[in-house]
Amino acid sequence: MKIAIVNGPNMNLLGRRQPEIYGCRTLHDIELSLREEFPGVDFLFFQSNSEGAIVSELQRLGYDEPGVDGIVLNAAAYTHTSLAIADAISAIPQPVVEVHLSNVYAREEIRRRSLIAPVCAGSISGFGAAVYSLAVRALI
Amino acid sequence: MKIAIVNGPNMNLLGRRQPEIYGCRTLHDIELSLREEFPGVDFLFFQSNSEGAIVSELQRLGYDEPGVDGIVLNAAAYTHTSLAIADAISAIPQPVVEVHLSNVYAREEIRRRSLIAPVCAGSISGFGAAVYSLAVRALI
Amino acid sequence: MKIAIVNGPNMNLLGRRQPEIYGCRTLHDIELSLREEFPGVDFLFFQSNSEGAIVSELQRLGYDEPGVDGIVLNAAAYTHTSLAIADAISAIPQPVVEVHLSNVYAREEIRRRSLIAPVCAGSISGFGAAVYSLAVRALI
Amino acid sequence: MKIAIVNGPNMNLLGRRQPEIYGCRTLHDIELSLREEFPGVDFLFFQSNSEGAIVSELQRLGYDEPGVDGIVLNAAAYTHTSLAIADAISAIPQPVVEVHLSNVYAREEIRRRSLIAPVCAGSISGFGAAVYSLAVRALI
Amino acid sequence: MKIAIVNGPNMNLLGRRQPEIYGCRTLHDIELSLREEFPGVDFLFFQSNSEGAIVSELQRLGYDEPGVDGIVLNAAAYTHTSLAIADAISAIPQPVVEVHLSNVYAREEIRRRSLIAPVCAGSISGFGAAVYSLAVRALI
Amino acid sequence: MKIAIVNGPNMNLLGRRQPEIYGCRTLHDIELSLREEFPGVDFLFFQSNSEGAIVSELQRLGYDEPGVDGIVLNAAAYTHTSLAIADAISAIPQPVVEVHLSNVYAREEIRRRSLIAPVCAGSISGFGAAVYSLAVRALI
Amino acid sequence: MKIAIVNGPNMNLLGRRQPEIYGCRTLHDIELSLREEFPGVDFLFFQSNSEGAIVSELQRLGYDEPGVDGIVLNAAAYTHTSLAIADAISAIPQPVVEVHLSNVYAREEIRRRSLIAPVCAGSISGFGAAVYSLAVRALI
Amino acid sequence: MKIAIVNGPNMNLLGRRQPEIYGCRTLHDIELSLREEFPGVDFLFFQSNSEGAIVSELQRLGYDEPGVDGIVLNAAAYTHTSLAIADAISAIPQPVVEVHLSNVYAREEIRRRSLIAPVCAGSISGFGAAVYSLAVRALI
Amino acid sequence: MKIAIVNGPNMNLLGRRQPEIYGCRTLHDIELSLREEFPGVDFLFFQSNSEGAIVSELQRLGYDEPGVDGIVLNAAAYTHTSLAIADAISAIPQPVVEVHLSNVYAREEIRRRSLIAPVCAGSISGFGAAVYSLAVRALI
Amino acid sequence: MKIAIVNGPNMNLLGRRQPEIYGCRTLHDIELSLREEFPGVDFLFFQSNSEGAIVSELQRLGYDEPGVDGIVLNAAAYTHTSLAIADAISAIPQPVVEVHLSNVYAREEIRRRSLIAPVCAGSISGFGAAVYSLAVRALI
Amino acid sequence: MKIAIVNGPNMNLLGRRQPEIYGCRTLHDIELSLREEFPGVDFLFFQSNSEGAIVSELQRLGYDEPGVDGIVLNAAAYTHTSLAIADAISAIPQPVVEVHLSNVYAREEIRRRSLIAPVCAGSISGFGAAVYSLAVRALI
Amino acid sequence: MKIAIVNGPNMNLLGRRQPEIYGCRTLHDIELSLREEFPGVDFLFFQSNSEGAIVSELQRLGYDEPGVDGIVLNAAAYTHTSLAIADAISAIPQPVVEVHLSNVYAREEIRRRSLIAPVCAGSISGFGAAVYSLAVRALI
Repeated sequence: MKIAIVNGPNMNLLGRRQPEIYGCRTLHDIELSLREEFPGVDFLFFQSNSEGAIVSELQRLGYDEPGVDGIVLNAAAYTHTSLAIADAISAIPQPVVEVHLSNVYAREEIRRRSLIAPVCAGSISGFGAAVYSLAVRALI
Repeated sequence: MKIAIVNGPNMNLLGRRQPEIYGCRTLHDIELSLREEFPGVDFLFFQSNSEGAIVSELQRLGYDEPGVDGIVLNAAAYTHTSLAIADAISAIPQPVVEVHLSNVYAREEIRRRSLIAPVCAGSISGFGAAVYSLAVRALI
Repeated sequence: MKIAIVNGPNMNLLGRRQPEIYGCRTLHDIELSLREEFPGVDFLFFQSNSEGAIVSELQRLGYDEPGVDGIVLNAAAYTHTSLAIADAISAIPQPVVEVHLSNVYAREEIRRRSLIAPVCAGSISGFGAAVYSLAVRALI
Repeated sequence: MKIAIVNGPNMNLLGRRQPEIYGCRTLHDIELSLREEFPGVDFLFFQSNSEGAIVSELQRLGYDEPGVDGIVLNAAAYTHTSLAIADAISAIPQPVVEVHLSNVYAREEIRRRSLIAPVCAGSISGFGAAVYSLAVRALI
Repeated sequence: MKIAIVNGPNMNLLGRRQPEIYGCRTLHDIELSLREEFPGVDFLFFQSNSEGAIVSELQRLGYDEPGVDGIVLNAAAYTHTSLAIADAISAIPQPVVEVHLSNVYAREEIRRRSLIAPVCAGSISGFGAAVYSLAVRALI
Repeated sequence: MKIAIVNGPNMNLLGRRQPEIYGCRTLHDIELSLREEFPGVDFLFFQSNSEGAIVSELQRLGYDEPGVDGIVLNAAAYTHTSLAIADAISAIPQPVVEVHLSNVYAREEIRRRSLIAPVCAGSISGFGAAVYSLAVRALI
Repeated sequence: MKIAIVNGPNMNLLGRRQPEIYGCRTLHDIELSLREEFPGVDFLFFQSNSEGAIVSELQRLGYDEPGVDGIVLNAAAYTHTSLAIADAISAIPQPVVEVHLSNVYAREEIRRRSLIAPVCAGSISGFGAAVYSLAVRALI
Repeated sequence: MKIAIVNGPNMNLLGRRQPEIYGCRTLHDIELSLREEFPGVDFLFFQSNSEGAIVSELQRLGYDEPGVDGIVLNAAAYTHTSLAIADAISAIPQPVVEVHLSNVYAREEIRRRSLIAPVCAGSISGFGAAVYSLAVRALI
Repeated sequence: MKIAIVNGPNMNLLGRRQPEIYGCRTLHDIELSLREEFPGVDFLFFQSNSEGAIVSELQRLGYDEPGVDGIVLNAAAYTHTSLAIADAISAIPQPVVEVHLSNVYAREEIRRRSLIAPVCAGSISGFGAAVYSLAVRALI
Repeated sequence: MKIAIVNGPNMNLLGRRQPEIYGCRTLHDIELSLREEFPGVDFLFFQSNSEGAIVSELQRLGYDEPGVDGIVLNAAAYTHTSLAIADAISAIPQPVVEVHLSNVYAREEIRRRSLIAPVCAGSISGFGAAVYSLAVRALI
Repeated sequence: MKIAIVNGPNMNLLGRRQPEIYGCRTLHDIELSLREEFPGVDFLFFQSNSEGAIVSELQRLGYDEPGVDGIVLNAAAYTHTSLAIADAISAIPQPVVEVHLSNVYAREEIRRRSLIAPVCAGSISGFGAAVYSLAVRALI
Repeated sequence: MKIAIVNGPNMNLLGRRQPEIYGCRTLHDIELSLREEFPGVDFLFFQSNSEGAIVSELQRLGYDEPGVDGIVLNAAAYTHTSLAIADAISAIPQPVVEVHLSNVYAREEIRRRSLIAPVCAGSISGFGAAVYSLAVRALI
């Protein structure tokens, strides 16, 4: 089984930015523990701060990378502002699961609207780094 | 470990109502498969069509039932209209995980607003009956 | 033919509350005159102030009570606040007709929005107690 | 007894436009069956695509046509955009009953607001051609 | 000097409709008293219930009728719904004065918005039939 | 004199829930101190988490319980979501005083709108348990 | 006859501020021409930049100044922000006529809402300094 | 091939109204140049200031005029206020192309909403009189 | 104990303005009865129609007048429009209690929003002149 | 003549993504047929999923690429979210024509607002791949 | 060079009100340090809690005080509620710079809208007392 | 001292785009004059049309570039649409000052909302190129 984990803007700062709040685990740590927890899954990891690069990666995963079964997407701030990513999700055949480390609904008004939720297979938010593991399990 | 599964209005029709759409699994079937999947967890199940009864049950689980570690809540339609359930969630010490069988964000405007999301520990939606299993795993 | 008449909160005060405005006819009087006007119809009457009880009764009429052909529903205040009743209506196979004694559109803003209208077979409002008789006729 | 049936824009296409959806009954058929169902009622029929012509006809029925007891009005699209028709309704002494063939509340946002409902005696919608018969009965 | 007085929908009922509220003066009476009060002014009177007819009349007064110096317009309900009349007003060279018999700002929300006010030379409301005389004076 | 004190959802947790914030006084303590402060008043106490039960109790107090002079209502979360309770208040002859322990206007948007305030005789909020005593005094 | 002319903030700059746009006529010039045009009227003039001073002057004109028959009020910017002036207008027995030199409806959104219009006897706007003369005539 | 060109309110003033802005070409000139540019097309031309007349013409073109292949509609101000025209468009079998001489999206808020766009086959705006020619080409 | 009673615009008309509605009691009468009811309290009274004067008085009471224990504020119309008064309330150390003679929530939309409520210790409305006495009691 | 065709996010999937809906024509096919249809035009083609890259390309076409006469822009999802592209369009001297393959006004709310329309010379939508050809013709 | 520093409501409490938050510097301290920092500038200082007094002072500075080159305005709460001050700013010839000690955009909704920003030459906020110095430098 | 100047989309056109409006100074000129004005400051300059590149640069300045003391950010159009840049600002330890060459509050509605203002240390707008110099001074 082949699953891609796509992370959006500022997620590369994980573990570095205010570790007393966001914890010390980096994206790389999450990558390692996912590989460990799901040895039978072939993982692809991608992070970008650019909306366009995420759109292109979703297209590549959908049409060019062979055998991708599902995608876990933490679009971060683009969750609330990017119709282009939403369009890319609906243009590709695989199911996409939306994840958020924290509860986005407890934040300011503009962050309560997700433009990508309506085109995702499902949505998981609020359990910290565990959301990636839950999403992989949901795809399986 | 002790986890309560609380279901809101019309969830008792599961498996009976339009089975070609919602599937044939009843709440009882979900109950059985959760017990099977998590043999070490002591499950409590509750369903009610009444907002007040759900508030009372959440209070009972929070203060009177001994040893409850977490609650999985599918508040169904009350997700969007009940501040009383939201208040009950914030009044009890255990974490509550919000679940929805389907993607609520792809439905009409009023169903995109969750009054209980801001006070829940996390939220999982859109994978059918699997959301209960994922939520239990998240609590663990 | 079997038709259920379901009434929501405060409808039990009919005939008692400000009779100079709402008239002296009670729900019981309406019941009697419906039985008289439609001798061939088997009527079931239900009134509750509880949203949950109305949801449960709609479910019971839809799945457990044998042979119900249609339902006339005066949801009163719940018309404007209850998604749970709307969900119950869409979950049952029989047609439901929404009725209101008075013209709800001439009242304050919040009463102009009906959450249950979109899932009802039709809607009749503004002719006093005659709306029940018209709704029964519409179901026939 | 004398009752006028007033129809608004595009209602003249009934029976002709997408008969698989709207049925094959024309306004003329509805006219015939109303006369048949209510032999003691003297019916007046009017249809226009023009907002101004409907205003003028309502005025004529209210003040110049002798003995009109009530009016059944299907204002169609003007229901949602015409304050002039609403003003005409409140300017005439007879009760006006608003009817709609289909459930207008299940359509797009703009069609859920009725400008004429607040000034009508009552409103009936969603039972197809039967709404005319129910409205006549309500007036009687 | 030549001034046109244009009246919109339902204004023809003046004096006839609820005279205890709107008074017994008809449009014709207003016409007579204007001619009397301003003997040196050549008046043109027009009333229509049709939005299109008012648009056409404004065009005619603007381009075809020779020597019109100004227009007094009581657009009644079209004040709040007609962009076509607003466009006609901006398309003609003469100043147009908007008048209303009563204080439209004390009525419901939708009647507080005037689509034609932004393109009129001025606006007078709330003094009953005297608004016509004040408007003529303002044009002079 | 006979006064009823009606409390809504989650008020039964008072004194138990986060006592460092809400204090240690329970509803029972408030009851005792009210009886002590107003020895000449005959008090009735009621608490429910159910909207329907509150509607029914208000009706009972209004029509069936003899001699009730006034009602103090802390509708808690239902303050913001229940039209049914608002309708019950307007259906009964006694004055109802709305109370809130804390300043509801300093909380999130949805809690700033009270559906019951427009039909209450008055409103008192923000002084903790003292609001009950002030409301009783206001009724006297 | 005794009529008061009350002017609000920045109206004292008339004739001084951008005379190529607003003209060279000062408030004093308007005062002189009103006295000339209406020799039989006893005029009182008042201007203030302070909301509270205008409230107090309206009260004084309403209750303390003997024999005031009507008030012409150009509240300028306070038209759109002052409920206190609106309350003062409804508290005094004389009719108040709202005037504006220019067409306020052609300006930005916030200037299209008049808080004082609903409590005024009438409203005149858009004819420059002539609005004072028209308003006096309307009061007469 | 047979194509109808339907124009709405005030379009008859083209060439006459502010020619320095809108140019000197009249609707008749546009008619001539279309006939010249598309010699093989049988053109029908219609202009009206009346919403109802446009509805009737669209119906006539759709059902009574034989062989109409498509319609080019410049609904002008009715674009933004007429649901009746939108209903007529969806009631007829031929494709309708919406055109506007200027860029309607650069004008005030109310003109940015097109009620007819959702039911048209396509929309062309902003190139002056050339939009008619482009629309005919699009239909071909 | 020292308590200040601050009244806003038009409150000085109490007892004079429409006494059949607002009663004959003046602010002075309220002052007298408060002194009588609370002989142990040292009262300060202030009324102004000016927003700035109320801001200055609140500052004076907060910092310059020695020993003020609390403030009762009836800001009248400024309740809904003055952020400056709200800022003054949060800038001073004493608790401020908001009072309104009538139920402001039953009035028009703009009067349902209180800008000062979020910074007050509590709020009492709807019992006529008794609100001052209740507020003093709440402060004690 | 030199015309640039600029395509936004996900347009590169044309012909590949759900061909039963969007057809089998790729952007390359559209390129070929444009060159064929307009042999005298020198075409430049550009597609990117990145908002910033589109801004840069528009700048390059506007200032660095010699002799560009006009630009056809299908901004896809960025149509609704990108002010940066709108700013680039207004910063360059050439006319830009907005095109959309489908009728964007028949889609969800957020897609009905075009941020770039107000700064484009014109807009063409809803005729499939033909919009490019129509836009080129409009530029010519 | 002559520059006026105008401060609005509650700014006179600076240094006195919650010094742990707002610092101990008073307006007088700011005055002294400005004079020290800009020895060549002739400063005028003004503070008032009254909207009308600020309007009058702006007028005085604009027309009566000789030689004023620019104005620094901290309108405090009036920033968000005063159109009268905005009108005064646009009525005077000198540039006005808006300053705020703190970041007003991080506060509640109503404080994010500045009524005076659109008519100011520029705006500086969020650097504490340094904003005055920066604004003076901007004017120079 | 080390300060970074970050410029967003279309800022690279400065001096080239409509020089009669925006002036002839390029970003490079601003760079030169800043170095000249603040010889003791070590400046870093960055401009990009890409949202993602700006996010990455802010991260690099915050964590990888040694010794950056503060950042001046002119996010141009992204000010109003980019939550990703706002998140980057809150993720880095240095203060960021928002600048705009012109008064953004005098432009259309969408440009009055700044998504980045709430997370910036301060904001300066409306003085042309001088805003950079003022912002540097504010950081010092």
